[in-house]
Amino acid sequence: MNILIVPNAFKESLEAEKVACAIRNGLKLSGLYCICNELPIADGGDGSLGVINQYLGAELFELEVNGPVGWHVMAKYGWQKRSEIGVVELAEASGIRHLHADQLDPWNASTVGTGQLIRELVEMGAKTIYLTVGGSATVDGALGILSALGTRFYHSKGQLTQPLTADLHKIVALDVSETLALLKDTSITILCDVINPLLGPHGAATVFGPQKGAKPNDIAQLEEGFANLAAIIARDFMKDIGDLPHAGAAGGVAGVLHGVLGSELVNGGKQILEWAGFEEALEKADVVITGEGKIDEQTAYGKGPGLVAKLAKDAGKYVIGISGSVSAEPRFYENFDIVLPIINAPGSIVEIFNHTAENLERTAMMIGRMLSR
Amino acid sequence: MNILIVPNAFKESLEAEKVACAIRNGLKLSGLYCICNELPIADGGDGSLGVINQYLGAELFELEVNGPVGWHVMAKYGWQKRSEIGVVELAEASGIRHLHADQLDPWNASTVGTGQLIRELVEMGAKTIYLTVGGSATVDGALGILSALGTRFYHSKGQLTQPLTADLHKIVALDVSETLALLKDTSITILCDVINPLLGPHGAATVFGPQKGAKPNDIAQLEEGFANLAAIIARDFMKDIGDLPHAGAAGGVAGVLHGVLGSELVNGGKQILEWAGFEEALEKADVVITGEGKIDEQTAYGKGPGLVAKLAKDAGKYVIGISGSVSAEPRFYENFDIVLPIINAPGSIVEIFNHTAENLERTAMMIGRMLSR
Repeated sequence: MNILIVPNAFKESLEAEKVACAIRNGLKLSGLYCICNELPIADGGDGSLGVINQYLGAELFELEVNGPVGWHVMAKYGWQKRSEIGVVELAEASGIRHLHADQLDPWNASTVGTGQLIRELVEMGAKTIYLTVGGSATVDGALGILSALGTRFYHSKGQLTQPLTADLHKIVALDVSETLALLKDTSITILCDVINPLLGPHGAATVFGPQKGAKPNDIAQLEEGFANLAAIIARDFMKDIGDLPHAGAAGGVAGVLHGVLGSELVNGGKQILEWAGFEEALEKADVVITGEGKIDEQTAYGKGPGLVAKLAKDAGKYVIGISGSVSAEPRFYENFDIVLPIINAPGSIVEIFNHTAENLERTAMMIGRMLSR
Repeated sequence: MNILIVPNAFKESLEAEKVACAIRNGLKLSGLYCICNELPIADGGDGSLGVINQYLGAELFELEVNGPVGWHVMAKYGWQKRSEIGVVELAEASGIRHLHADQLDPWNASTVGTGQLIRELVEMGAKTIYLTVGGSATVDGALGILSALGTRFYHSKGQLTQPLTADLHKIVALDVSETLALLKDTSITILCDVINPLLGPHGAATVFGPQKGAKPNDIAQLEEGFANLAAIIARDFMKDIGDLPHAGAAGGVAGVLHGVLGSELVNGGKQILEWAGFEEALEKADVVITGEGKIDEQTAYGKGPGLVAKLAKDAGKYVIGISGSVSAEPRFYENFDIVLPIINAPGSIVEIFNHTAENLERTAMMIGRMLSR
């Protein structure tokens, strides 16, 4: 039996590669005779860097940059010298994982540190930069990134020295000449983890603002700021980013970089599956095991393991999902033959998160025994 | 496919009958074509009354009796008029479930209420009384039960008016003439949930004393009390109850009633399986699903679902265990083909206990899908 193991990371608990390893160990312990093929994946969100580096053969580097607010952080990035490819994960410098709930500050949190990472890679000679944009602490419409790359922003009284989210609605023009010169030999492709547009009821302000700390009263002002920036981009760059799919990712970073720099926006999950050689591996597989921290409505909408399950089911494979938190409603298990939770006993979140590897191994062992039937 | 569903109750959460029903519902929802046969079981411990009443066709009655300490409680019991059979669950009157942790009082907690239930049944004309003895709050060596049935206890200075655990080591003689007269047409059979003897390192004081609130310092005095009573029984009743299997159940109730009244001690789990017609049902089954609140070391030692699993595996059936709390160590899954936990997501004990039925249904639905493969 050929088993393809294609898990996401279990967020805040275990990296995708270790998840795959625990699943393989469990299958081996079950005594099932099987060939395991492990393809850890990511969806372009938080935690994608390690997975992408693995498939692109990129090395890991680290740089001290501005964090999302106030203090500096050490941020990792990937560099593949032979093909001059850089990999930046926005959450490394500008991620919500750097902040406690009471430190969330949507009006001041900035992606400037991510811009500093991109600049570093450009100076190293990167021809292509892949930027993954999940898990941000920011809704700054890429103001930080663009500033770090030399873009100047103006309001009615002159230049903004340190443009922040709070300035979005005041901007009247921007000058990207220095940025375009810097990036003349570099293209940026953005691996998006969501499909939401920049504006409107499914837009960045309404859907993601609250996660980044925006209060109900803040949403309208935030929407106004994004609409202002979108209008300037439509006027000066002839790009309509308001309704563009993916444009709302990471508080407008995706849409604004597309509008200003022509960055391509791609579905991060699909791109990573392509790099992983998923299609070819799927052909050989009898059974596909996928999973992530949660299998819920989001999964049913085709994110991460949901996409894997759909592709595998379309190819007629037996599809098993495993997860720490499984929707109580089996209607969200579309494309999965079975979905199994891994928690073995009640316990605190900390205890549960500390036992993910052994819970995965035990669950995979049971799957192996089940497949032996 | 013929599926035999043989679950215990999920303690403090869902009765065995409702567990069986949820499992059947899940299997039906899975679309698996199957015939389900439901035999809810118990192991002679806490919660056995309802299951036994069902198989013996006994009706439920209620009586106000003494609780384990201080106040009175309403206690249920079973009565099957045609065959004059009574069913008493010790925990109904004398169970630890009546007390909060800070109300545990091993030196004063008494089984007198259980004795009152037995007396009521004798007066109703019971020829046979089945007494299940799990989940007691008491370590009184049946002093309460015997007192309620008319036995007199003496210490060196005369009769003890209300003998309690604290008096065990002072007793020098007992007079059971009134009790034997009362029970002249009634036999008591004790359905034990544990195999532990009365005395020694696996005895009632050492193993179960702490659960009933005995402090480390209390254990030796408790052991001394049991040893004293065992010596009197050996001297006056020619019965050696110190090492007898099951004698330590319910703080010595099983051993002392055997010694004084000749009560038969039986394995509660086996007896209930026999009443349920398990053996016959097993022959027809292809798959056996069993489970209880916890599947752990105790299960591996043959308690409840562990016994079911052993009998089913010996008969060559495919055996599935489901549980709210599954041992992290698969070495305790002896006799089970697979063991699956049902908790779908992290949560408080209260949340988890409130969702047992739906978690069982979802898990059984996954089992059904798995069996359809």
